[in-house]
Order: sequence, then structure tokens, then C-alpha cells
Amino acid sequence: MTDPNCIFCKIAAGHIPSFKVFEDDVVFAFLDIGPLVTGHTLVIPKAHYPTVMETPPEVLSAINARIPALSRAVLAATGAKACHVLVNNGSEAMQSVDHLHYHILPRKPGDSFRIPWNAGTLDKASGSSLAESIKSELAR
Amino acid sequence: MTDPNCIFCKIAAGHIPSFKVFEDDVVFAFLDIGPLVTGHTLVIPKAHYPTVMETPPEVLSAINARIPALSRAVLAATGAKACHVLVNNGSEAMQSVDHLHYHILPRKPGDSFRIPWNAGTLDKASGSSLAESIKSELAR
Repeated sequence: MTDPNCIFCKIAAGHIPSFKVFEDDVVFAFLDIGPLVTGHTLVIPKAHYPTVMETPPEVLSAINARIPALSRAVLAATGAKACHVLVNNGSEAMQSVDHLHYHILPRKPGDSFRIPWNAGTLDKASGSSLAESIKSELAR
Repeated sequence: MTDPNCIFCKIAAGHIPSFKVFEDDVVFAFLDIGPLVTGHTLVIPKAHYPTVMETPPEVLSAINARIPALSRAVLAATGAKACHVLVNNGSEAMQSVDHLHYHILPRKPGDSFRIPWNAGTLDKASGSSLAESIKSELAR
């Protein structure tokens, strides 16, 4: 359930120090030492899973059950009112450590972080076709 | 539990058409009609909650229990191997519809979407102080 070569497994086990903010039987939360914004917090399962695609649903349920209280605490401590909750799954989605981690990213007006939001359009034929493909995959 | 003025409540109830990919008693998933990338999918609770901060833990658990299968299906349908799972909570975090929604954003090499990752540093004094503040807020 843990990977002896994984830095986040070592952090969750207390073998590497971290700025821990929360711990229970399933979940460990600590500050990112390379913060994008003040209060950048990581929430990880203690067990080693690479991405949401391979994580048992009950583990994602347990992690996310802690997100409301954790996000409220991070916002209260930083004075922010908004936040992103972000998971990068896979190297092409910029995942840097191969152990599932949720980023809590508090946002304030005028801060330096920005997600570019260049929305495209979805025509009816493409949307219908794509939705059917996804439904077919779900039914496998 | 629903907001008569909320477009996502109307979509989840079937009163506004959508490119639906999944539905059960708690969750509704459909294609974003303003996609950032091909396969951009939204996963929402049928009940109306604004952000993760106000959503009951059990509702977040239910939504996220569906994420492994949904993300695998979106990736299989689009041929992508990686994805972001993103929640924007609050207007300062670019939330555009006031009904909790998870973005599944498939990523491929050379695609046009990019999250800037200008990581800062966290010194020991700041990290310790911030972690203590968050822990104090959690203990309230």
C-alpha cells in the first residue's frame, strides 16, 4: 500500500518532515513547499495510488469527505474566500509526484496565479458523438 | 435542494438539454459546451451546493466515488492518457456557475491548454506559522 521510493509515502509516514496540517487514518495534508499561492496545501491518501483513474472509489470518497473542513481552514488561515481544488493525473497533466495529491489553492483578487480559460465551442454533432463514446466506455 | 434559477439544476433535472454522459441518484455528468480541451466533462451533484466549502462531506464522497470510472471513460473516448480534475470554488477562483462542478480535462501532448506553474518557495518560519494557523482553524 506504500511505495518505498515515493517521497509522498515517506512524508505521510513521517519519515520526511513536512508542514503537516492534518492527519487521520486515511489522509495526510501538508503545505506544498513550492507554493503557487500562499496557503497552497496538498491532501494525499496515506496509501500509494498514482492518479484518480486507479484509486479505489472509497479512498477518493474518504479524501474528499475531508475537503470541506480543510478548504475552509485554509481559507480562514489565509484570508482568502475562494480556492481551486485541483488534481493533476499523469505526466501530460503536469503531475510531478506519482502519488495522488489534491492541491488546495486559495485565490485572492490580484494574486499572481491564473488558469487560462480559452473556451471553445461544441457543436451538436461532435457533442452527441463524444457523449455516446463516453457512455459506451462507461458501459464496458 | 435545487435552485429554480440555477442552470445546472435545470440541466440535472433534464429541463435544459445537455450532452449527458452519466446520471444516477446523486450525480449528473455532461459535456461542457465551452470546452477547454476535447472531452471537457462536468460532474455535478443533482442537489444545489455552491462550492466544496459548503457541500456536505457525504455528497463530495458520492461525487468522487464516480470519478475513477468517469475519468477512465473520458480518457478512453478521447485517446488521452492524462487529465486534470478541477473545481473552481468562488468567483475569485473563476467559478462561473454557482453550482458545484468538477471539470474533467483530458490532456494530450501538444494540446493548447496549460496551467502556469510558477512555484515559489516556503521558508521554515512561514511554513510553520501557516501550518499552525490552519491547524488552529481546523480545531475550531
